[in-house]
Amino acid sequence: MEDIKLPGKAPIQFYFDFSSPYSYIASEWIEAVAARHGRRVQWHAVLLGFLFQSTGLKPLVEYPIKRDYATRDMFRSAAFAGVPFSLPDPFPIGTVNAARVFWWLEGTDPLRAAAFARAALRGYFTRNVNLSDPNQLKRLCADTGLDAEAAEAAWGDQQWKAKLKAANDAAQAAGVFGAPYFIVDGEPFWGNDRQQQMEAWLQSGPPKGLS
Amino acid sequence: MEDIKLPGKAPIQFYFDFSSPYSYIASEWIEAVAARHGRRVQWHAVLLGFLFQSTGLKPLVEYPIKRDYATRDMFRSAAFAGVPFSLPDPFPIGTVNAARVFWWLEGTDPLRAAAFARAALRGYFTRNVNLSDPNQLKRLCADTGLDAEAAEAAWGDQQWKAKLKAANDAAQAAGVFGAPYFIVDGEPFWGNDRQQQMEAWLQSGPPKGLS
Repeated sequence: MEDIKLPGKAPIQFYFDFSSPYSYIASEWIEAVAARHGRRVQWHAVLLGFLFQSTGLKPLVEYPIKRDYATRDMFRSAAFAGVPFSLPDPFPIGTVNAARVFWWLEGTDPLRAAAFARAALRGYFTRNVNLSDPNQLKRLCADTGLDAEAAEAAWGDQQWKAKLKAANDAAQAAGVFGAPYFIVDGEPFWGNDRQQQMEAWLQSGPPKGLS
Repeated sequence: MEDIKLPGKAPIQFYFDFSSPYSYIASEWIEAVAARHGRRVQWHAVLLGFLFQSTGLKPLVEYPIKRDYATRDMFRSAAFAGVPFSLPDPFPIGTVNAARVFWWLEGTDPLRAAAFARAALRGYFTRNVNLSDPNQLKRLCADTGLDAEAAEAAWGDQQWKAKLKAANDAAQAAGVFGAPYFIVDGEPFWGNDRQQQMEAWLQSGPPKGLS
């Protein structure tokens, strides 16, 4: 995407996975936070499974004791953010097709790609729309004003497979190991729970005492 | 410890490890947060290594890419909390002796145990006092007004070894799998970054929309 060149006003880099509850919560506030500080958001669909593979990390849900806490925390964090939330079933799901649709759109119209991302995350985490199911994903595409057949062709197209792979590689090279992950002027913030620190940073830069 | 019996005003349960940077940061604000809401704090020294063993979790620092981010995040989180912080060397350290001193004190004087905990965390994370070194731990005990010889005898005493083990077992039974970990009227909060949610909960209970 082409950036408006304003010094010190680079877009917020926002990395998300379509199957990540905290990415969904963040997707509901990131644009408002950016707007409050005169920023735009550059959205990046990534595959957490790919990033975990390369680091030896595992999803939260693989640790039973952590899973119980995390489930409670998802609902609570959504409620604190004023965002509707339900835990989908199945969860987690493969998000490779949704991510390819995102990158297909992103190549020509980043705003539309972001709108699709928000709609898909909201569909999965509020209406149990299973994005890993081709028919449900096509219907969601149609509901958001896309050509569903073209979307399906896109997720099977080598070009967008390669684009997603390159996006994952680029995220990994940028140090991304989880989602949501944000980068503001080179400063990384990991997690929906870093909203407050990121906003303070956008407002006034580094906190006093941080070198 | 004996609790003052006020309905709905149970103490905040606060679980920490002497080698946990985020536990240290939380130890600097937990008493003020509790006081603002008419609560007391019940401190629990635990051994993260023990809790990790039982869950299959690993410390942050075992994942190189996460470690780099986490180090940055520790400094930033401390600065945002207005807390002085330096990353000690060696880090992490064994904290079994410090934890036994804590439980030795806690048995007779919980406030003194909490004061010792704050001093020990601050010593390790601001002045590089190596709590795993018997001589440095004894000096720290003396500096905080304790009988250093009695403290050393306590950490070698079977009674306080057993007490720490029981405290770890109790923490595990309560669902604690990391530190800092807080429980407010049965609601668990994990991490220094849940301060805001915990304060809102103390103020008004569950957020709107949370069942």
